[in-house]
Amino acid sequence: MRVTFHGELVQLREQLVAMCAMAAQAMRQASRALLMADLDLAERVIAGDAALDQARGGCEDHAQSLLALQAPVASDLRSILAAVYSAEKIERMGDLAAHIADTARFSHPDHAVPADLEDTFARLGEIAAGMADRLGELIGQPGVDGFAELDETDHAVDALHSRVLTTITGPGWPYGVRTATSLALLARFHERFADQAVSVAKRLDFAATGEFPA
Amino acid sequence: MRVTFHGELVQLREQLVAMCAMAAQAMRQASRALLMADLDLAERVIAGDAALDQARGGCEDHAQSLLALQAPVASDLRSILAAVYSAEKIERMGDLAAHIADTARFSHPDHAVPADLEDTFARLGEIAAGMADRLGELIGQPGVDGFAELDETDHAVDALHSRVLTTITGPGWPYGVRTATSLALLARFHERFADQAVSVAKRLDFAATGEFPA
Repeated sequence: MRVTFHGELVQLREQLVAMCAMAAQAMRQASRALLMADLDLAERVIAGDAALDQARGGCEDHAQSLLALQAPVASDLRSILAAVYSAEKIERMGDLAAHIADTARFSHPDHAVPADLEDTFARLGEIAAGMADRLGELIGQPGVDGFAELDETDHAVDALHSRVLTTITGPGWPYGVRTATSLALLARFHERFADQAVSVAKRLDFAATGEFPA
Repeated sequence: MRVTFHGELVQLREQLVAMCAMAAQAMRQASRALLMADLDLAERVIAGDAALDQARGGCEDHAQSLLALQAPVASDLRSILAAVYSAEKIERMGDLAAHIADTARFSHPDHAVPADLEDTFARLGEIAAGMADRLGELIGQPGVDGFAELDETDHAVDALHSRVLTTITGPGWPYGVRTATSLALLARFHERFADQAVSVAKRLDFAATGEFPA
């Protein structure tokens, strides 16, 4: 029975790893759609989000049946609750990537990001997608102390987010209010994507140790 | 044993009802702090958010011990998972209220909201706080079909959110980019607060029926 149960836990983890890969791809493609003003790609990201919603439903159903059939306790119980929590956050990462794609779609045929902020947003997209990749690795190899690592990466995202806000609200901003508003929200979508990854890593550490990392 | 378990479920619900009251109060006070440029009140909301984080931890611990000790199945299991989900969302509502208070604090002694958008933001704050109140009632009286009702109210929030975006990006906006950016984020904080309430209501309907409302 315990072997079966642990096999099921491994499978649940694999479902989450697959979700991380989907979120990373959604962010990479959304970022590319944004920077290239690529309407087709933006629409693919938006349409593709349903698959991540469905994957989350699959994780929840699996977790719920494990709880009902196996009545786990202690760290096994924490692991399953962490999986439910993680699935919800990773799904949210997909929503945020879709919001970015939606901005690209709305702006098309114009570019939503002016040339002098392209590098900043390219970096934001790259780091955010890399956090989703890394989160998948951390879920696949439980026990690694991932929170400290992703929290560190998140500081870089926060710094880029601040740079966007400083740029658009600074003196001599030449692109007007509509562009500034759109960039403020875009920066926030990236920042929230990164935040979800950090909060999943925190929850995984809790599942492994029974204590939240400081 | 079953009586005790159902007593525990009632107590878990009461914890969530108390969290809704805290979120509603946080939103009301944040909205007031924003519109009155009231620094003391803004700081109280920001400091008070820790209590909601703690209440969420209490709900999770309680839910986890019920899962471990009682091994519930079917609708009881769904109810406990819904409580974990709800606690997380209601805590997020508190975070969003704190973000609004933070904007008020950052702008002080200036008003973050120009006079001609005060009514719109007053309405946003009022509706959002009312949704937290109503969510508490729905949690306290399970079985009521709350999703349709809160989803309907949420349309009013979305309309006000759109009005803010249209106003700040429309021709003749006189207050500059910094104010516009801040208002775009403020409107989003209110909208996300309302979204969390809707998603909790949806989850409660699922817990009651085993099916997500359409």
